[in-house]
Amino acid sequence: MRKKFIPFEVLEKFMVDLMVKAGIPEADARIVGDVLLQADKLGFDSHGVNRLKSIYLDRIKDGILNPVTNYKIVREGPTTAVIDGQNGMGHVISYNAMKMAIEKAKKYGMGMVAVRNSSHYGFAGYYPLMAVRENMIGITGTNARPSIAPTFGVENMLGTNPLTFGMPTDEPFPFLLDCATSIAQRGKVELYAREGKDLPKGWVIDENGESKTNSTEVLKDLIAGKAALTPLGGAGEETGGYKGYGYATVVEILSAALQQGAFMKMLIGLEDGKKVPYRIGHFFIAVDISAFTDPEDFRKTTGSILRELRASRKMPGQTRIYTAGEKEHYTWLERKDKGVPFSDELLAEFRGLCNTYGLKEYLPHFD
Amino acid sequence: MRKKFIPFEVLEKFMVDLMVKAGIPEADARIVGDVLLQADKLGFDSHGVNRLKSIYLDRIKDGILNPVTNYKIVREGPTTAVIDGQNGMGHVISYNAMKMAIEKAKKYGMGMVAVRNSSHYGFAGYYPLMAVRENMIGITGTNARPSIAPTFGVENMLGTNPLTFGMPTDEPFPFLLDCATSIAQRGKVELYAREGKDLPKGWVIDENGESKTNSTEVLKDLIAGKAALTPLGGAGEETGGYKGYGYATVVEILSAALQQGAFMKMLIGLEDGKKVPYRIGHFFIAVDISAFTDPEDFRKTTGSILRELRASRKMPGQTRIYTAGEKEHYTWLERKDKGVPFSDELLAEFRGLCNTYGLKEYLPHFD
Repeated sequence: MRKKFIPFEVLEKFMVDLMVKAGIPEADARIVGDVLLQADKLGFDSHGVNRLKSIYLDRIKDGILNPVTNYKIVREGPTTAVIDGQNGMGHVISYNAMKMAIEKAKKYGMGMVAVRNSSHYGFAGYYPLMAVRENMIGITGTNARPSIAPTFGVENMLGTNPLTFGMPTDEPFPFLLDCATSIAQRGKVELYAREGKDLPKGWVIDENGESKTNSTEVLKDLIAGKAALTPLGGAGEETGGYKGYGYATVVEILSAALQQGAFMKMLIGLEDGKKVPYRIGHFFIAVDISAFTDPEDFRKTTGSILRELRASRKMPGQTRIYTAGEKEHYTWLERKDKGVPFSDELLAEFRGLCNTYGLKEYLPHFD
Repeated sequence: MRKKFIPFEVLEKFMVDLMVKAGIPEADARIVGDVLLQADKLGFDSHGVNRLKSIYLDRIKDGILNPVTNYKIVREGPTTAVIDGQNGMGHVISYNAMKMAIEKAKKYGMGMVAVRNSSHYGFAGYYPLMAVRENMIGITGTNARPSIAPTFGVENMLGTNPLTFGMPTDEPFPFLLDCATSIAQRGKVELYAREGKDLPKGWVIDENGESKTNSTEVLKDLIAGKAALTPLGGAGEETGGYKGYGYATVVEILSAALQQGAFMKMLIGLEDGKKVPYRIGHFFIAVDISAFTDPEDFRKTTGSILRELRASRKMPGQTRIYTAGEKEHYTWLERKDKGVPFSDELLAEFRGLCNTYGLKEYLPHFD
């Protein structure tokens, strides 16, 4: 299916030019572009440049996303802050929120910033990685359009609510756990639908609580409220689904209660049939390792844990055990000289963007 | 199976007297007793008074657990601290560590204390609930004897490593998510074995990666390293097992790297065939809600999220949706006038303790 690799430099420049045309100030456009590209660099394909149009540009056009981000610090303490994003670009708000958390952690050992009235912040792992580069532990989470049904329920109530951790190691790549608290996230279902593939059993349930696997139907039913994602651990209690449901709830609370923001059904993006801002909430935590121990020692211990895990006994037929962040590093090594793989469909979409936004000079890149 | 209810007051007094006989100072014994009883009050039966003998008293006798807890603060900053537990009682160390985190959060908005060389701290939820009573968010985690196999592995490498959150609400009970990052924890397997029941499929894998359900055999095989618990999400990747494995790894890192403590195979409790201290690590985080918003507003929002979840559409055949901490509250309501349910086996064990520790006056209670 994937056909052509577009170099990172081309995409970076194109996205910035494009976003500037869409009304985003250049410095902000650089942040948004970097978050999207970072997702593609690490293989989070469901959160990369392919979402530029549908999740960001289209929403700006619809008037439900402010291209000019004017966030406001509503409250601030030594280690804490609350930010109102005022429906600006989620990446810009979040980049600045994590920066604040890091600054506070440098001074006091820890920092936490809670954000309300933001928008989709892209690949969650981006923000913990900012902390990791400063020898810190980074943690983030965000709520999102309702998708997950609670244990014993069939209604999509909770967002796919990632709970994301980044930690420095002594290896060429950090520990990075960036995952939804559902078995699968919406972006992955979209990927299956684009590729015309059926979903594995257990990812999605219908109104009767039965597994539903037709990916195209699922996408429609998720929006219609006739299907829901299952929490990590699955439907019911026997395989621990209440735990994934519990973690999704933790993220929903931390993304709304500290910042007195919107949650669950309020995040549907519609009011009386009219499109409205999504009003998403996030939180960002930075923990300064040097407040506890020598960062070199932290890196070594973390690296040892990861290496011992990889070296442990494999299941028959399996040749490798991975740790979180490792596959992402291999994707980067594979892509770093090539760029982002584009499908025919995505190339066409980008040619469309060149035309719509008056950037015809980029057309040959997306041929 | 369960036969007799022993009132909380009796157990509290008995446990303190017993622990004093075992060499634990009275003030410390009160803390340990309270942690164990709290587990029984909320229905965490696998972590209650039934573990007093096997996990605590026996280890003191074996000389691998210090009845007198002399923990040491190794390092301290405005929001952070590292504690060396010096193989004292895990509950006492942890109670004081969470207290420190709470004090720091009162002053600066957040607090985090990392602990090394501790011992089994009992029911993890106890410590977040301390924070909740102070209008704070409480978070904790701990490593433990290796039990979970990584994705694509069959060797028990990671502890059942709970990642536990408590939050205040406007309801008569808090939000409390206290769960292992495996599908099931060791204590639950012990419970199945005691009741002679088979385990549900998927909880445990054998050396070939096949599901193993004989609970008695599993207990032996877990110790022999011939079986392993599966991470939340199950074995393999299709149902998200790498996520549970990832969260278990996060807890292992936070329980060892910040405090430069022991991890994974070091926690086996054996060295050259000789019993040695478990050297367990924990972490405790407190976040002061009032640094972000009015705690009343936080409680209301959190309560609204939970009530909306419970009111959402049920699966056919299901009459209720629960939120984390709710069932625990009902257990408390059911038990508060009765006490802790004791099986014949446990009654016999406690009569044994009365005799061994010279507390015959308690014998009639455990008849």
